[in-house]
Amino acid sequence: MEKNLFLKIAYDGTGFSGWQRQPNKRTVQGVLEEAFTAICNVPIKVEGTSRTDAGVHAFCQRATVKGEFRIPIENMKKALNNYLAGTMNKGKKPPDVRVLEIVSAPVGFHARFNAKGKQYRYIIENSQEPSVFKRNYAYYIKERLDTDDMLEAASFLEGTHDFASFQSAGGTPRETTVRTIYSIDIFKENPEQVTIEIKGDGFLYNMVRIIVGTLVEVGIGRIEPHAVEDILKSKERQRAGHTAPPQGLYLKNVYYELPKEESIDG
Amino acid sequence: MEKNLFLKIAYDGTGFSGWQRQPNKRTVQGVLEEAFTAICNVPIKVEGTSRTDAGVHAFCQRATVKGEFRIPIENMKKALNNYLAGTMNKGKKPPDVRVLEIVSAPVGFHARFNAKGKQYRYIIENSQEPSVFKRNYAYYIKERLDTDDMLEAASFLEGTHDFASFQSAGGTPRETTVRTIYSIDIFKENPEQVTIEIKGDGFLYNMVRIIVGTLVEVGIGRIEPHAVEDILKSKERQRAGHTAPPQGLYLKNVYYELPKEESIDG
Repeated sequence: MEKNLFLKIAYDGTGFSGWQRQPNKRTVQGVLEEAFTAICNVPIKVEGTSRTDAGVHAFCQRATVKGEFRIPIENMKKALNNYLAGTMNKGKKPPDVRVLEIVSAPVGFHARFNAKGKQYRYIIENSQEPSVFKRNYAYYIKERLDTDDMLEAASFLEGTHDFASFQSAGGTPRETTVRTIYSIDIFKENPEQVTIEIKGDGFLYNMVRIIVGTLVEVGIGRIEPHAVEDILKSKERQRAGHTAPPQGLYLKNVYYELPKEESIDG
Repeated sequence: MEKNLFLKIAYDGTGFSGWQRQPNKRTVQGVLEEAFTAICNVPIKVEGTSRTDAGVHAFCQRATVKGEFRIPIENMKKALNNYLAGTMNKGKKPPDVRVLEIVSAPVGFHARFNAKGKQYRYIIENSQEPSVFKRNYAYYIKERLDTDDMLEAASFLEGTHDFASFQSAGGTPRETTVRTIYSIDIFKENPEQVTIEIKGDGFLYNMVRIIVGTLVEVGIGRIEPHAVEDILKSKERQRAGHTAPPQGLYLKNVYYELPKEESIDG
């Protein structure tokens, strides 16, 4: 009988050409599908919530996997992680992608289509000199960031707006560029780190990274905080700030209301 | 006039085949020599204190550089770091090796031969599940480590001993395998991390990593703490524990007494 599995996954995006399967490239989806296929002995597709770009990390990516699995679900997490460890560095180091949890989901439940919202974290290293250890895990900004100005600017972005100014070309075409941002938190995790957390019902292509790039330009005084309101209204990408680099971005949470069984079958 | 520069350097060892220059391999020494040579327009050799292995990191490596530099010393650090940033990822990320400090040293002063001692840090991730973000920066051990037993075992290693049991084959031949360990500190940096810091007057090839491997085996109960005394006395490598992997090891400090000018010239 076909089952539907719901996965929680973490990965260090440094060594991946992003989430989405691509020929001859190492991607998270590709590596996971290879692992499932090897464990279960039949081709298996893994559908993720967020198609993160190359270099983007995940504390918690979500995915659904449909198939007739030959292994009991309670053994599958260990089998997958052992397979992933074994194919990487002959097990000498833990793998850079890891299955954190596998549970059974109702048939028809889909990690992306059923997601109600997502939270991203963005880490900025804001210090006199960059650490050699943070290059793949943060965006280095030397100029001192004014987090009060950044918070003021961010307040214009919270709520339901047309975010056309904060979208890169090249993403999946969308019906609408209206999205709701529930919250943007900006805090100094320590004297040398500014962390931005953004929660919303959905995000356009590169939206988080363009928001961060814009907030950084506010933080260093290149854009006035209140100008962000005009940028939003203009619906012109070129009015917003730069696209912050991928290595500072982490998918942190995906929110769901699990659908009722009858609404799926009926 | 020939000058002698004394450098403080940090690097993430993940992307390097170790410190020492090797043909067709990316090494820290090689990258730094390329940078110096490019900046100063003459071939320049960089002599490091510790020839760290592939994957080993440095918070603070030391090196001396002799030459007739065309750039004032006060501008050199910035020029080198800009060069390193420019050759890597087109400057989009900070480089994985960084010059932290350059000062002038007496002629004849040598980063390795004048070093009086070194401190290494070793990071062990000791948690139920390995983090995808620590794979290149810690040694993952699932079994709960008993740090009291490890401390007891470590106490036998402190002081002046023949460390022949704690040496890998293949290093530079040494006159003696007697070394002095000033201190071994072992502490839980957080509930999921055990940190070992070892300070000594000098270390044999892989000595820190074999000490750590042995202490890990003590920590999981495979070796009795007091057995470490016998291991030391036996002078047999095969009696000691395994060699802990390189990615947990960090060169943290190098100690010097700066020689008097006359003792160098005379």
